[in-house]
Amino acid sequence: MNPDPFNRNCGSRKVIDRIGDRWSVLVVLALADGGKRYGELAERIDGISQKMLTQTLRGLERDGLVTRTVHASVPPRVDYALTDLGRSVLDLVAGLEAWATTHLAEVEAARARYDAR
Amino acid sequence: MNPDPFNRNCGSRKVIDRIGDRWSVLVVLALADGGKRYGELAERIDGISQKMLTQTLRGLERDGLVTRTVHASVPPRVDYALTDLGRSVLDLVAGLEAWATTHLAEVEAARARYDAR
Repeated sequence: MNPDPFNRNCGSRKVIDRIGDRWSVLVVLALADGGKRYGELAERIDGISQKMLTQTLRGLERDGLVTRTVHASVPPRVDYALTDLGRSVLDLVAGLEAWATTHLAEVEAARARYDAR
Repeated sequence: MNPDPFNRNCGSRKVIDRIGDRWSVLVVLALADGGKRYGELAERIDGISQKMLTQTLRGLERDGLVTRTVHASVPPRVDYALTDLGRSVLDLVAGLEAWATTHLAEVEAARARYDAR
């Protein structure tokens, strides 16, 4: 049977959750130009909590989109990078970011109209 | 200032939440070929709860992606349809669906490897 997210039992719904999640989008975009340390990601993604960044990286690693490499230095250095699978989603998440920024004003105007009804 | 979801105060983060949400994705896709009634959407999107469908439609309407039209029939008929803004996000959400279904097996294999460590 082909995967179909319209079917309640299809795992593709969870994959949409992963790649459509705002924090996953930002982490993947932050890694677009190369691997980064945890601290660099925390700095780039303004306002993300440590808990949320750790949880997002773990989810992306678990789903095969990101690798986590521990370097044997003192203190240990931990690098995160996109896998081939992670790179294959780059255009899509860049598209989400582009749509969100391009249409932000329209969406906010629609919200204001709705809330004023 | 240009919208930038890397900035904690930028509203574009909430727009990513909207368009990347699994239920929004499925509702927008279900409306791709034309307007539908509430019951048709509920049937098409297998397993969605009434509460979640109502909430998703309200969110999409508030954000200007979907129109809600009440027809003066007995009983009243309510139709939902994409706006121009909603249609502008179609390719993107179709891309999310396509990526999720195409790469589902890879993601599930990665998860199994991760969980077995």
